[in-house]
Amino acid sequence: MRNAMEAGFKLDHRLENDTVKLASWPLSEVLLMNDSQYPWVILVPRHEGATEIYQLTIDEQAQLLKESAFLGEALMTLCSGEKLNVAALGNVVNQLHLHHVVRFSSDKAWPGPVWGKYSVVPYSDDALKGVIGLLGSIADKCWG
Amino acid sequence: MRNAMEAGFKLDHRLENDTVKLASWPLSEVLLMNDSQYPWVILVPRHEGATEIYQLTIDEQAQLLKESAFLGEALMTLCSGEKLNVAALGNVVNQLHLHHVVRFSSDKAWPGPVWGKYSVVPYSDDALKGVIGLLGSIADKCWG
Repeated sequence: MRNAMEAGFKLDHRLENDTVKLASWPLSEVLLMNDSQYPWVILVPRHEGATEIYQLTIDEQAQLLKESAFLGEALMTLCSGEKLNVAALGNVVNQLHLHHVVRFSSDKAWPGPVWGKYSVVPYSDDALKGVIGLLGSIADKCWG
Repeated sequence: MRNAMEAGFKLDHRLENDTVKLASWPLSEVLLMNDSQYPWVILVPRHEGATEIYQLTIDEQAQLLKESAFLGEALMTLCSGEKLNVAALGNVVNQLHLHHVVRFSSDKAWPGPVWGKYSVVPYSDDALKGVIGLLGSIADKCWG
């Protein structure tokens, strides 16, 4: 999976600022969105310059699907979520990234989407440590 | 791809009301969202009871990816789109469906997501015929 595209990869600074890294999987960086309002993890394929899923190679697309399905199911199980929202949007940050947000009918933005609705509420330092520990163990279980 | 899951499949009536069918692909129904504000096509895998991508079989997941990547690239090329939004949300209609929305920095909801922002503006009868003809030809090119 390592190639020239990956060699030149650099995480967008806005994604870097908004998230905490949980793991590096074969294709993607696994990033916790630092928003305590929703369990929210982002996959960023290390393919420099890609903005759309169809711009990945066929092998990378298959790997992204594998990582996304694993992550989505693990998050839903861990959090006893009601619905998973999976989305590649990129209207603001166009570096390809795939959101995974666990939703509850009791959450603030329900049933609307979470993007651009309410300001982010960062985790406290202690809560962040707890969440990183919990999600980090999932991440390690797979390709950590 | 035909199996017991498909045999029992029935399109959710809200999806049926909001869309116009363009084609049946090996896994998915291909539906035009009847909203003239954005080029917007939805794939609905014919797997009765599925609400999440990870609930599909591995073969179905791979086929969904194939159909989604083909559709996304074709829509972006046809419409000279600036960004594609691909999303499986399902907070309102939980039958698994995958949105593909071509976005422009000049569109009404930009850079926000399109869901739940503005009321739908249906196509006129003539415009609808034109769009169906245009998108139908893409659909046919692949697995029509």
